[in-house]
Amino acid sequence: MSGVWGRKIKYTIFGESHGKGIGIVIDGLPSGLSLDEAFIQKEMARRAPGSSEFSTPRVEKDQIEILSGLFQGKTTGTPLCAIIINGSQKSKDYDKMRDIARPGHADITGYIKYKGFNDFRGGGHFSGRITAPIVFAGAVAKQILAEKNVFIGSHIYSICDIRDLEFQSPDLNEEVFIKLSESGFPILDSSKGEGMKELIRKAKSEKDSLGGIIEAAIINVPCGLGDPFFDSMESNIAHLLFSIPAVKGVEFGAGFDITKMKGSESNDPLYMEGDQIKTSTNHNGGILGGITSGMPIIFRAAFKPTPSIGKAQKTINFDLKEDTQIEVTGRHDPCIVPRALPVVEACAALSVLDFM
Amino acid sequence: MSGVWGRKIKYTIFGESHGKGIGIVIDGLPSGLSLDEAFIQKEMARRAPGSSEFSTPRVEKDQIEILSGLFQGKTTGTPLCAIIINGSQKSKDYDKMRDIARPGHADITGYIKYKGFNDFRGGGHFSGRITAPIVFAGAVAKQILAEKNVFIGSHIYSICDIRDLEFQSPDLNEEVFIKLSESGFPILDSSKGEGMKELIRKAKSEKDSLGGIIEAAIINVPCGLGDPFFDSMESNIAHLLFSIPAVKGVEFGAGFDITKMKGSESNDPLYMEGDQIKTSTNHNGGILGGITSGMPIIFRAAFKPTPSIGKAQKTINFDLKEDTQIEVTGRHDPCIVPRALPVVEACAALSVLDFM
Amino acid sequence: MSGVWGRKIKYTIFGESHGKGIGIVIDGLPSGLSLDEAFIQKEMARRAPGSSEFSTPRVEKDQIEILSGLFQGKTTGTPLCAIIINGSQKSKDYDKMRDIARPGHADITGYIKYKGFNDFRGGGHFSGRITAPIVFAGAVAKQILAEKNVFIGSHIYSICDIRDLEFQSPDLNEEVFIKLSESGFPILDSSKGEGMKELIRKAKSEKDSLGGIIEAAIINVPCGLGDPFFDSMESNIAHLLFSIPAVKGVEFGAGFDITKMKGSESNDPLYMEGDQIKTSTNHNGGILGGITSGMPIIFRAAFKPTPSIGKAQKTINFDLKEDTQIEVTGRHDPCIVPRALPVVEACAALSVLDFM
Amino acid sequence: MSGVWGRKIKYTIFGESHGKGIGIVIDGLPSGLSLDEAFIQKEMARRAPGSSEFSTPRVEKDQIEILSGLFQGKTTGTPLCAIIINGSQKSKDYDKMRDIARPGHADITGYIKYKGFNDFRGGGHFSGRITAPIVFAGAVAKQILAEKNVFIGSHIYSICDIRDLEFQSPDLNEEVFIKLSESGFPILDSSKGEGMKELIRKAKSEKDSLGGIIEAAIINVPCGLGDPFFDSMESNIAHLLFSIPAVKGVEFGAGFDITKMKGSESNDPLYMEGDQIKTSTNHNGGILGGITSGMPIIFRAAFKPTPSIGKAQKTINFDLKEDTQIEVTGRHDPCIVPRALPVVEACAALSVLDFM
Repeated sequence: MSGVWGRKIKYTIFGESHGKGIGIVIDGLPSGLSLDEAFIQKEMARRAPGSSEFSTPRVEKDQIEILSGLFQGKTTGTPLCAIIINGSQKSKDYDKMRDIARPGHADITGYIKYKGFNDFRGGGHFSGRITAPIVFAGAVAKQILAEKNVFIGSHIYSICDIRDLEFQSPDLNEEVFIKLSESGFPILDSSKGEGMKELIRKAKSEKDSLGGIIEAAIINVPCGLGDPFFDSMESNIAHLLFSIPAVKGVEFGAGFDITKMKGSESNDPLYMEGDQIKTSTNHNGGILGGITSGMPIIFRAAFKPTPSIGKAQKTINFDLKEDTQIEVTGRHDPCIVPRALPVVEACAALSVLDFM
Repeated sequence: MSGVWGRKIKYTIFGESHGKGIGIVIDGLPSGLSLDEAFIQKEMARRAPGSSEFSTPRVEKDQIEILSGLFQGKTTGTPLCAIIINGSQKSKDYDKMRDIARPGHADITGYIKYKGFNDFRGGGHFSGRITAPIVFAGAVAKQILAEKNVFIGSHIYSICDIRDLEFQSPDLNEEVFIKLSESGFPILDSSKGEGMKELIRKAKSEKDSLGGIIEAAIINVPCGLGDPFFDSMESNIAHLLFSIPAVKGVEFGAGFDITKMKGSESNDPLYMEGDQIKTSTNHNGGILGGITSGMPIIFRAAFKPTPSIGKAQKTINFDLKEDTQIEVTGRHDPCIVPRALPVVEACAALSVLDFM
Repeated sequence: MSGVWGRKIKYTIFGESHGKGIGIVIDGLPSGLSLDEAFIQKEMARRAPGSSEFSTPRVEKDQIEILSGLFQGKTTGTPLCAIIINGSQKSKDYDKMRDIARPGHADITGYIKYKGFNDFRGGGHFSGRITAPIVFAGAVAKQILAEKNVFIGSHIYSICDIRDLEFQSPDLNEEVFIKLSESGFPILDSSKGEGMKELIRKAKSEKDSLGGIIEAAIINVPCGLGDPFFDSMESNIAHLLFSIPAVKGVEFGAGFDITKMKGSESNDPLYMEGDQIKTSTNHNGGILGGITSGMPIIFRAAFKPTPSIGKAQKTINFDLKEDTQIEVTGRHDPCIVPRALPVVEACAALSVLDFM
Repeated sequence: MSGVWGRKIKYTIFGESHGKGIGIVIDGLPSGLSLDEAFIQKEMARRAPGSSEFSTPRVEKDQIEILSGLFQGKTTGTPLCAIIINGSQKSKDYDKMRDIARPGHADITGYIKYKGFNDFRGGGHFSGRITAPIVFAGAVAKQILAEKNVFIGSHIYSICDIRDLEFQSPDLNEEVFIKLSESGFPILDSSKGEGMKELIRKAKSEKDSLGGIIEAAIINVPCGLGDPFFDSMESNIAHLLFSIPAVKGVEFGAGFDITKMKGSESNDPLYMEGDQIKTSTNHNGGILGGITSGMPIIFRAAFKPTPSIGKAQKTINFDLKEDTQIEVTGRHDPCIVPRALPVVEACAALSVLDFM
């Protein structure tokens, strides 16, 4: 009912973690766009597992195959379908856990929603793996945005209770974003990195997991995008972000902290810089009345700790309807945040492009 | 482009603060529903200005008139159009400020988006007044939900830096919500009320304003509502909340604080209570994988301080493209939070109903 | 569930024939458009009853009142709501017929769909009166199209078995359309008019009614509008036309007659006329593969005879579930075709604008 | 922009005739549905080329592969993606014709819409081949409908000027439909078959082509489906039918001929048959006011002659912008009508299911 998103460009997502394949159909792309395959693979690699000590050592070849909508290297303007064929999976691991709900996962809600017919293996359609096609779509969207000089970047804002610096609007530019995207553990204050990593290593060794916050920014967005009701720029970005499994909070600009300011502080003073309208602060995160102001759009998304942990947890067997325990086996990311950065950026790219 | 929202039931909003009228068309209501007019007026009154010392003394008669879709007191099943005719307004107050952007408002973004043709008086279509039809729609939605035993309540979670208690899932029931809705300043910890009010009075006397956080809960929602992509229950609720002018952050369950937990803490342990599946904590706010779990849905929305303040602020004259100052005259709420409670609840009601 | 139509511009319709009012919300209009009120009233008058011997002598003042989206005579870019307040109606006429289904009407289907709660008076939401807001929207759309040199015209193609001439693509221009729109009974072959009128007069005297076919054309539509799947230009136009009560058939170009041609006849030969691509015939009605070719779009819509007739008809009392008879009293158009021309043109205008 | 259709169930189509693959994503299917693969292949075979003397001898293996949404033979409730990998194609045939528009085809409109970047080989996304995924979706929809006792059938109503009998509402039942679906050339009046076939053979021998009309019926549809505005049952069915390349007309019930009746003839008299409401005629084709009446839905779609013909035709070279001639080589159906029957039925199935 809801695997389709977008207005001018429509994205239809499909697939299960251990099914034959996952993918996306992108409908409404302009014709004549040369897809930058190297860039796309780079973006896919940022999300792919197995690339660092903090991600699952599972090897998932996120090899994109384009079935339609591309001809002689350029988009045709008709629907572009991109698929990733899943490799063979050790589904037996999951079979024995079929009826035991993993706490913090959609096992029980999916079971009830789909009346027990959903593909439970590896989370099925709920798997974080389904964000791979989103990253692909984001890479395509970023290419279109880059032609209009719009760029998106992100960093790890916090891991558990260790916090990085905040994005400062005047410092943001394409180079900063590229540098961050090329880091395996992108942060602004390099002195915080080792502490964050140490926390993750410790959680991993304790068969536990951690969460964190991602901060992202979009620069050079023209003023005037978004609608007052019901499709504010915040609504659109938040809608997509809250599709990402594990996101439990989204805020723009000063976000929740803006509630501790006075109006005389939170109102960003306007001034003219040559012909440009600017604000000297950016507590509103580049959005006023749901519409972009031309200042950088800045937002943060809160990711909960990976629900799959090796520690024993109380739960239920929903077939027998009785209490039990579970230790989730298999190899899982002790912290999903580093791999989630390109997903967050993709959501931002899709949202902004939807208004351009 | 975006004044329409919803799937099974579609809501089309229209109007400007100082135009002839504002209203909403609700398309897809079941036929045969008796509208409870007393309840609707009570809900409208919760949002209406002029009811307390903290709201603007402007008198806006939010008198609902139903043009269609209601016959012999019952819904017909065809589109229901409800309008509120605006009284005569002192628009002259606004005329002289036409070209001077009020910081924190959509004056500049609206001016650019609509190329200068938007109705600037009183914020026009960006006015908080446009939330009145949302409250009407929410009241209708709440009636339908109540028949299915689903109830919604909210309280002031914080004003500036004074924080109320949090909703505790086991304590939530219809009576608690009714009591809160009947209070002019609904909080859980009565000892905090006076301090909050004092802060608002002080801000008012300083020609300044304050923000705050609203916490809301929805109880007895059946398990299984929402979709993994792209219409998670969080996506839907957040989409509407971020349409409300002034909302800069939305979080579910433990929200941003969940990022400071370990997986072994944030995963809500499941257990059987008779035939019912429950969780002993509710850090996920009643939603797992985008789908309701049957536990109360709990969320918070951050409201920025009212941007209209009497204090002098730096800004620009966007016609002359030069820097200037502004002191926003007129009577404005020093803190919008108390009046925003029914709007937040309405968004929750519309979102949940969309999945039922 | 369906009172909303459109993509770039969304139209939300509401109202019942004998309710307080009917209307439409148009969302997504460009800002800064000066509405030509004289033109709008002229279009409304073409559809309004009481203007000729062939229409019902009921006087319905189709006085448009604009509640929002218009400021200082220009569109604001925010939703425009236009309403028509219904005058007082002699609803008693209808009361006694409540449970007796009028054959050919939606009495029985509406009763079952809405479980008996629909406003049955005068057809309620099914009334042809609900096309008045469509004509208003069409008048607005035509204004926007005229700025792009796109014009729409129509004529009575047939009444019962008397057929007018067909539109010939090379002869079509703005002046022809204006002349037709100013005629009370627009036909191409003036020698056929009296015969058609005589047929209608005769049907009227026999307490019976007639149907007919309307042919319309849209000229100067740029090549390249429409989509192969699922929103072909034909799909979009036909979708709206089949919303009009009484339309039972829609065809483009040679339409059903194209099935009697050979490919060597139906294929319109292409040729260059200076820089312009033209076809020497237009059997495809200006649309190839769902996409406009630049040739005039030509289509026809079949209208069934007015179902309200004074003659005795066999029917049922659906409350008593027994067979009975009915003679529909009240004053009704013996033939709806002449008043339906602006409605057909409005549908064409909305459809084409949706792609521009 | 438009490759997505549907409300409760959404269909996203993609692919080009000579690209890697074509397919469809079906989003919103109920979970737990066992797909009847034999039935699906039978439906695919009805549309597939190469099965009779009247269809192109090209061999296209329409082998469906399901990538997602199916687990242990049952639908999961999450998006079902079905693809058909295209075999290797002799695209060289098309290469030399790249800039020469085939009359009656979308070559020129597609070229302009997509700015020359569309995949021109074999019609690309405009190819009739893209209806194969529609037939797949139709087969799935028919299975769901059959569980509710709703059945769909069709026959060749006319080839050129030879006309079959019409469907008679009282005669329609599942057996009739099955028998028709199993015929290679389904007609009601067997005496007409040889004449029709002879016409097609003759057109083929003359390097020409023919069109025709398909009549379809849907039985046992419950009363009350469809909406007055804008999604009448007629609107929905016609919308899909007009997506099929080659359809130039659609009519319901008596269709265009209803315009030659009087109201006293076209109004279908109602009567009670036990507890059932029936009409003694069915000139309205089972739909009143856009809503199903419970009587069989009957409609006809006009197919133009296959535009690809071997005869010499006048056309243009749109690169050189000069007049030229073309003889379309390759092997093409002299008449598409027999293969189009399952496509028409599929559109009917998708439309009706959308309301159930």
